Amino acid sequence: MNPTDVIERKRDGSRLKPDEVREFFLAYHRGEVAEYQMSAFLMAVVFNGLDLSELEALLDVMIHSGATLDLGHLPGPRADKHSTGGVGDKVSLTLAPLAAELGMYVPMMSGRGLGHTGGTLDKLEAIPGFRTDLDLESFTRVVEDVGYGMIGQTAEIAPIDRRTYDLRSVTGTVPCIPLIASSILSKKLAEDLDVLLLDVKVGDGAFIADREMSDRLAQVMVDLADARGVRTVALQTAMDRPLGVAVGNGLETDEAIATLKGGGPADFRALVVREAAEMAALALGEPGSGAAVESSLDAAVAEWSDRAESLLDSGAAFECFLRNVEAQGGDRASCEAEGPIAPAPVVREVVATSGGVVKHVAPRTLGQGVVALGGGRTKLGEAIDPSVGFEILVEPGTEVEPGTPLGRVHAASDDDAARGETILRDAIALGEGAPERLRLVVGRVSPSGS
Amino acid sequence: MNPTDVIERKRDGSRLKPDEVREFFLAYHRGEVAEYQMSAFLMAVVFNGLDLSELEALLDVMIHSGATLDLGHLPGPRADKHSTGGVGDKVSLTLAPLAAELGMYVPMMSGRGLGHTGGTLDKLEAIPGFRTDLDLESFTRVVEDVGYGMIGQTAEIAPIDRRTYDLRSVTGTVPCIPLIASSILSKKLAEDLDVLLLDVKVGDGAFIADREMSDRLAQVMVDLADARGVRTVALQTAMDRPLGVAVGNGLETDEAIATLKGGGPADFRALVVREAAEMAALALGEPGSGAAVESSLDAAVAEWSDRAESLLDSGAAFECFLRNVEAQGGDRASCEAEGPIAPAPVVREVVATSGGVVKHVAPRTLGQGVVALGGGRTKLGEAIDPSVGFEILVEPGTEVEPGTPLGRVHAASDDDAARGETILRDAIALGEGAPERLRLVVGRVSPSGS
Repeated sequence: MNPTDVIERKRDGSRLKPDEVREFFLAYHRGEVAEYQMSAFLMAVVFNGLDLSELEALLDVMIHSGATLDLGHLPGPRADKHSTGGVGDKVSLTLAPLAAELGMYVPMMSGRGLGHTGGTLDKLEAIPGFRTDLDLESFTRVVEDVGYGMIGQTAEIAPIDRRTYDLRSVTGTVPCIPLIASSILSKKLAEDLDVLLLDVKVGDGAFIADREMSDRLAQVMVDLADARGVRTVALQTAMDRPLGVAVGNGLETDEAIATLKGGGPADFRALVVREAAEMAALALGEPGSGAAVESSLDAAVAEWSDRAESLLDSGAAFECFLRNVEAQGGDRASCEAEGPIAPAPVVREVVATSGGVVKHVAPRTLGQGVVALGGGRTKLGEAIDPSVGFEILVEPGTEVEPGTPLGRVHAASDDDAARGETILRDAIALGEGAPERLRLVVGRVSPSGS
Repeated sequence: MNPTDVIERKRDGSRLKPDEVREFFLAYHRGEVAEYQMSAFLMAVVFNGLDLSELEALLDVMIHSGATLDLGHLPGPRADKHSTGGVGDKVSLTLAPLAAELGMYVPMMSGRGLGHTGGTLDKLEAIPGFRTDLDLESFTRVVEDVGYGMIGQTAEIAPIDRRTYDLRSVTGTVPCIPLIASSILSKKLAEDLDVLLLDVKVGDGAFIADREMSDRLAQVMVDLADARGVRTVALQTAMDRPLGVAVGNGLETDEAIATLKGGGPADFRALVVREAAEMAALALGEPGSGAAVESSLDAAVAEWSDRAESLLDSGAAFECFLRNVEAQGGDRASCEAEGPIAPAPVVREVVATSGGVVKHVAPRTLGQGVVALGGGRTKLGEAIDPSVGFEILVEPGTEVEPGTPLGRVHAASDDDAARGETILRDAIALGEGAPERLRLVVGRVSPSGS
């Protein structure tokens, strides 16, 4: 294989043979394709794309460049979900124990927050002692024992993706559907899954705000995972507003726990239940039948939703969560206690100064606000303060009068609290009449062939 | 400047500010923009191009990254020509002394052969002792004393271009009009010229075989050089067949010398005369008037052509050539002698085995044939044999009978001669009826504004 020839043919719009894609990336892994050749190739892909057969080869080589889990010995189906990232998106913390209680094994490898969106690992680490850096062996044991486990993507997983991702971030080759899709899936499909649920965020708070691009991303990822024998659907969900009330790592962990105790905000609980039910329908078929029956998928999702609601209300999912916290070194008592898991020194309530209807709650402004308060990062590796963030007590459509509480700022100091108040007020737009807002679940994407 | 931001904006089709282009390439020169960022940028340029203001900035920063000649003290105008490269293109060897005799100074920096096209330096080095590696000071003295000099592009000239060119050759970013134009001109315009003639080859033997692309390249280069105050025209000339009879370094030097002695093939002599006259009209205006008069350009070219013919016939141009050979360490006697300057061990005549009309003489086949016989290179730095090559005794339209000589192969051995015969026969297509062939000068491109 001549690397320059491969670059030239992608530049000229040719479809590469799967073996050529494989060989090009393996040669990169071995150091025989230079970084400058890979970046030129990636830019050609930004312009000319990759078709399904090329993408399948790329995904395959990325997955097999590193370690993969081997969970075939588990007595139940393995399922996971991936979110493209949103503000207030603490779904994984509540979903994983709920899915485990429904009868699935969830070997979840997650990421950290970067930019305006948070990351599951940062939220978990608000729990004193919680370790997200287990090795793959210990992690597998936690999944076996508890039904789920939660760790970071280790260096052993998909190293070609890791190197390619770092290169993309400094060469202007990030926003490209096939490259995003293969990067996400190379990590998720190393988990040896039967079922994958994708949560593709839609709206101005999503990483990919453009709806048409988000549709294409959802379809490509679903088709690609399905082609590898992983039963996959994507839900497209609202990110034109924050999800739930809490934005900020410790506050979100509190909200995830409250929901596991049968409480929590209605929109957040509804999304968790829906995602758990979608996963269960794919992984377990109709409740009690033990087999997936495609024709009655909607009925199966409805039945699994009812079961999921009960498991939240009964405290069974919370018990599973506590078992995981213990297994991963976290402090069980902090999670059982009523107060915040990471209390902030200053909490400031912000009230409306005029009346009206909430037209918009800007997720990006709040996400960036968490970073400004010290609870997020602009560069990988920065330390964060888990205690800071916002509670948003209104949503698009809420009618307010002067004096109505809009939210609370949790901050490290009075100065920061004042800064946070300005950000919170900026994020909430008041006006008149009914606001435009997306439905919680905007769409559902199945494999093209089905 | 954030390099990633510059790459992203070029990727998204934005026009960059001239200062951004300049700063991006200077940062590359300083090592602050990585090779992998430059290659991604170049690939984005392949897709989205550069407009004239971006290109002017790029050209400027490339020229000023290195040494430039300073020839303002010379008592006459400085003129040069650049060819995009063809087979049998030995124009520079005859043109430079002719232009010098017409009253111009020609500080010519040339390249070596690569792939199927030859290079001026390789042809000159067929002359025993001839040195093309003079430093800029010695070179300037030769130009002053003789009227012209011929050297290679030294490492001091346009180092940003040199690095970018090396990167392009391994990242699939070569065939891109703005990048080709800026690369060519960054070297030529370091010569401190008043006048530049571009010979843009057209036809299947040209580097850029596509006519539309060749038109655009000619226009962009003419506009770009003109915008820097260098009076420039491009001639588009035929490369659907070899130029002249000789293909191969020593044979081409013989042919250039024969033409300087008043002989030589008609097509080659006509092109040399036309190019010299175009340069003179731009550099010197109407003969005797001392000023350029645009309205009578055609008349000026015609008059200068007559003068050029006389200078070839009188031997004045040859005398100038011999003075240059002496000044650059070459053996004058070899050039004055009648025989070949670099005789090959084996010369094999090839005759037609059937009758017909020559429909096509494939320049690329013959150029690659010279490489196969050891007279060219596939990688920079390879040694070459100056004695090998072809004489082509027919041209498109020649009627032949069985036994008519088609050409001669000059080779290092009998085996090579046999191989050469096969190549020569492959290159010449016989058929019936009049062949399609380009006129010697297909077009002439002036600056867009004029």
